[in-house]
Amino acid sequence: MTTGVPHSDGPGAQPLRSDAERNRERIIAAARTVFARDGLNASMASVAREAGVGIATMFRRFPTKEELVDAVFSDRMGAYADAVAVALDDSDPWKGFVGYIETACAMQAADSGFADVLTMAFPTAKVLEQRRNQAYEGMLRLIDRAKATGRLREDFDPSDLVLIHMANAGVVNATGEAAPDAWRRVVALLVQSLETPARGPLPAPPGHEPLYKAMLRAGRDTSTPTPGRTD
Amino acid sequence: MTTGVPHSDGPGAQPLRSDAERNRERIIAAARTVFARDGLNASMASVAREAGVGIATMFRRFPTKEELVDAVFSDRMGAYADAVAVALDDSDPWKGFVGYIETACAMQAADSGFADVLTMAFPTAKVLEQRRNQAYEGMLRLIDRAKATGRLREDFDPSDLVLIHMANAGVVNATGEAAPDAWRRVVALLVQSLETPARGPLPAPPGHEPLYKAMLRAGRDTSTPTPGRTD
Repeated sequence: MTTGVPHSDGPGAQPLRSDAERNRERIIAAARTVFARDGLNASMASVAREAGVGIATMFRRFPTKEELVDAVFSDRMGAYADAVAVALDDSDPWKGFVGYIETACAMQAADSGFADVLTMAFPTAKVLEQRRNQAYEGMLRLIDRAKATGRLREDFDPSDLVLIHMANAGVVNATGEAAPDAWRRVVALLVQSLETPARGPLPAPPGHEPLYKAMLRAGRDTSTPTPGRTD
Repeated sequence: MTTGVPHSDGPGAQPLRSDAERNRERIIAAARTVFARDGLNASMASVAREAGVGIATMFRRFPTKEELVDAVFSDRMGAYADAVAVALDDSDPWKGFVGYIETACAMQAADSGFADVLTMAFPTAKVLEQRRNQAYEGMLRLIDRAKATGRLREDFDPSDLVLIHMANAGVVNATGEAAPDAWRRVVALLVQSLETPARGPLPAPPGHEPLYKAMLRAGRDTSTPTPGRTD
């Protein structure tokens, strides 16, 4: 019906536009809660319910889950990139490197959704991925610096940081509130394994391409129902 | 209606019993495939579909997911317990210990469902849990032996094996077919961190009770829909 009532997103529709903005903010706040608790596999429908908006409104504001992920986690990814910058400022490169791993893993432990985000890729989440790239660039320098001091093993590969995040996500998601600090022990073991002298050789790292493919697939999987879940 | 027609599970109902047995075997075979591919969160409905049986038949044969898990994974848990026995036979206790971790983690990599089973508890899956307990008893001796040689760090706790399985499940589930050997690198790092001399102290282990609580919760979660998934 074209009754002359402006579309909620139309120009000049001030009160309705405010509604749209309010809904957007409610959805983002709800998604923060739901993803932090349940991880990124939580459905758009459960976010809509938590926000108290209809599913149609939900998809009008966020047509894809990647857009929602971008809106919810870009700040967090910014903080993640900031942690790299802080680590690079440390006058002790090894201490900076270790502190960064601990901070990043603590960010995973504090938020199941972000724990997942660090193990997944979302190519259309522009802000999020731009900040992840920024963090990655800093990480490469952090690794080089730590190796230059001789304390980080030479065969450490940037992809190992992703693997550490995957392992940590496994511990965080499996232990949850029942054993909320268990991840610290695993991360401590991993960090100790990285210090020179290396205790032995390692299997080859997975390589950038295969690992990125895995992260893409995992990201896509969050947008599609778990197999057999919807029936 | 008591028409005298024997119930399908009743005594003397040979043809029907065969049907029931056939369905049972088809369901177990289908569940093996589905769980290995999708992990233990795959629904009963998706197993029924893979088996080509109705959901009613599915629930008649396996009223709860725990019963299905028991039927599907008891053999695998038996093999896991056997691996402990093999490790205990190794004349080099450290080599036995390390070989056991690698074998157990390889079993996780080969089967997403079993990767999950090792991080979850299913109290009513009697055969499975009995074999897990058997493996656990052997593991305690394996740990004692490895410590006695002086090569396994003194602060290693039996719960660390569960944490290693949780970390490995995180890597296995996140990398999947895109990087099928990535887990080997993380497990190699963890194993190297366990050898004496320890590089430093560790945060306290989570303790048996909290970890078991986490495993129970994770096991229960596989039987209930993922939050927001079913709507």
